Amino acid sequence: MRATVMYQAGDVRVETVPDPVLKEPTDAIVRVTHSCICGSDLWPYGSMAFTEHGRRMGHEFIGVIEDIGADVAGLKRGELVVAPFLWADNTCDFCREGLQTSCRHGGGWGSPGVDAGQGEAVRVPQAQGTLVKLPVAVDSALMPSLLTLSDVFCTGHHGALTAKVAPGRSVTVVGDGAVGLCAVLAAKRLGAEHIILMGRHRSRTDLGRDFGATDIVAERGEEAVAKVRDLTGGDGTHGVIECVGTEESLATAIGAVRDGGVVSRLGVSQYTGVPMGFDTMMRNLTLTGGAAPARAYIDELMPDILDGTVEPGRVFDRTIGLHGVPDGYQAMADREALKVLIKP
Amino acid sequence: MRATVMYQAGDVRVETVPDPVLKEPTDAIVRVTHSCICGSDLWPYGSMAFTEHGRRMGHEFIGVIEDIGADVAGLKRGELVVAPFLWADNTCDFCREGLQTSCRHGGGWGSPGVDAGQGEAVRVPQAQGTLVKLPVAVDSALMPSLLTLSDVFCTGHHGALTAKVAPGRSVTVVGDGAVGLCAVLAAKRLGAEHIILMGRHRSRTDLGRDFGATDIVAERGEEAVAKVRDLTGGDGTHGVIECVGTEESLATAIGAVRDGGVVSRLGVSQYTGVPMGFDTMMRNLTLTGGAAPARAYIDELMPDILDGTVEPGRVFDRTIGLHGVPDGYQAMADREALKVLIKP
Repeated sequence: MRATVMYQAGDVRVETVPDPVLKEPTDAIVRVTHSCICGSDLWPYGSMAFTEHGRRMGHEFIGVIEDIGADVAGLKRGELVVAPFLWADNTCDFCREGLQTSCRHGGGWGSPGVDAGQGEAVRVPQAQGTLVKLPVAVDSALMPSLLTLSDVFCTGHHGALTAKVAPGRSVTVVGDGAVGLCAVLAAKRLGAEHIILMGRHRSRTDLGRDFGATDIVAERGEEAVAKVRDLTGGDGTHGVIECVGTEESLATAIGAVRDGGVVSRLGVSQYTGVPMGFDTMMRNLTLTGGAAPARAYIDELMPDILDGTVEPGRVFDRTIGLHGVPDGYQAMADREALKVLIKP
Repeated sequence: MRATVMYQAGDVRVETVPDPVLKEPTDAIVRVTHSCICGSDLWPYGSMAFTEHGRRMGHEFIGVIEDIGADVAGLKRGELVVAPFLWADNTCDFCREGLQTSCRHGGGWGSPGVDAGQGEAVRVPQAQGTLVKLPVAVDSALMPSLLTLSDVFCTGHHGALTAKVAPGRSVTVVGDGAVGLCAVLAAKRLGAEHIILMGRHRSRTDLGRDFGATDIVAERGEEAVAKVRDLTGGDGTHGVIECVGTEESLATAIGAVRDGGVVSRLGVSQYTGVPMGFDTMMRNLTLTGGAAPARAYIDELMPDILDGTVEPGRVFDRTIGLHGVPDGYQAMADREALKVLIKP
């Protein structure tokens, strides 16, 4: 089959790789119908050191079950399924607590010996715990939104939830990428009345307004913090959802939060230290968030997609075939595309 | 009157200062009957640069109301009261949320123009919001425990609460000072079944066992983390309460917490950066805690002291008069005394 392999920064290739086969009775083989490129894929695209055998890419996909192991119950061939961005047994103690990202038998797409999403097919470990059936046809117009259940909409929801977004509370979202926009949508869905979006790309912040942002802050750094404080009577917002991952954006997030408030981080951290010393301690700030346990949220979020309440799939602004993946990476790196959908 | 003034590291003096008088109609004058030295006082005692006029010390006290402003309701002369370690109006939005440490009209003892606790008397700003009546006589045997409502027991409770201590959950307490021991006591009170105390001073860890610690870890750093993981099947504890304040102890706390768990920090931070990069994000760790809103907890905790359920006053192992304060600082710095009670 054909699949995406990254060899180093800027070097993404679509190559022929071995067809997936069942290895464990808990596996399933899924023929991918929809996949995409994630903002987090841009970090290795910008900095990855050369590796001889490359790294299989993609952790968001929808597909049709083609083969299935003997120990997988509740799923059968021909069913359309979505996969969260980490696989998990969904039965261990961490999974039962809703922290499938720490599953005792889980792991990541593209790790050694495991396929990834930007390809024609995937061997799915722990298929019963990982895959979730979609009650629509493969040509449904809802497919882009359902694909965001793999990652970005669930990630935005994780940010809003852990930032304690609720009716009557205010929130700032740092970053106007797909995760940031989904965080706005999730915050609106959870009842936030005042949603400040930090971003400077007009087409993106316009979508952010559609998703529920009440204010846009185009400034950065200390100026952005000052603007949020202006908008909140000097206090900052109850919650801040950090959707970039740099030290600078995290410092901005910490500066924009109200005393006693919560900074939830979703952007994959490119930093090793968090600037939270004495002042933030006196202010009783909380830092939380992290990798979203998407599997825990799919059942809750899918109905709102199916009935049209939310339309997170609007973050996709370009659709390509598998051969177009290298260009898709470059378009996202150049910020010409917000998020690229792949139909292998 | 006589009061304690610190001029620089190692230089604490008891001096004659102006007698306090009412300045605002919201003030009260309190004649101090019980005060104490805090572990956090040892940070300036170890490092403070020389200042010509010095800094008034002490933020924990019980006393008798001697004079009272016209706008103070609910209190009268002769009543015995306890003061939390920050003063607050207890009516602003932050106070109503239980975050009196961020009160819009509050502040700290010993700040410019404000008296402090290690002296004969104190002008108490925002007296109505700050002071809490004690339903005992001044010679009550409960006085040491009631004095811990100013700070250390409420601070330990803040740590246990924000670390989400509850029945069935495990917790590690880093540090065997008075705050650490009170955190053990508070965790036990909230139902924690597995309480690991990190400390290496036998008399203190023995008191920790009396307070509810189920395991003592004398190791430090990575060895301490390994020990906690040994005691928890490799996982770490659900919560960790950091009661020291150094970068090293914070790193130990972060290492000892279970995926999805909470590190609550109580030790006054001597660090500017928190080591929480990519790994802690994938593990969904939360950093929380901070300066305890003691005023918010006094009403809840006092009954358990009055009926003997808890005895946090056992952290006091030395009682001195005001003249003995300089020696008291040195005894605590030398770890000869755990916590020193002052009877001015």
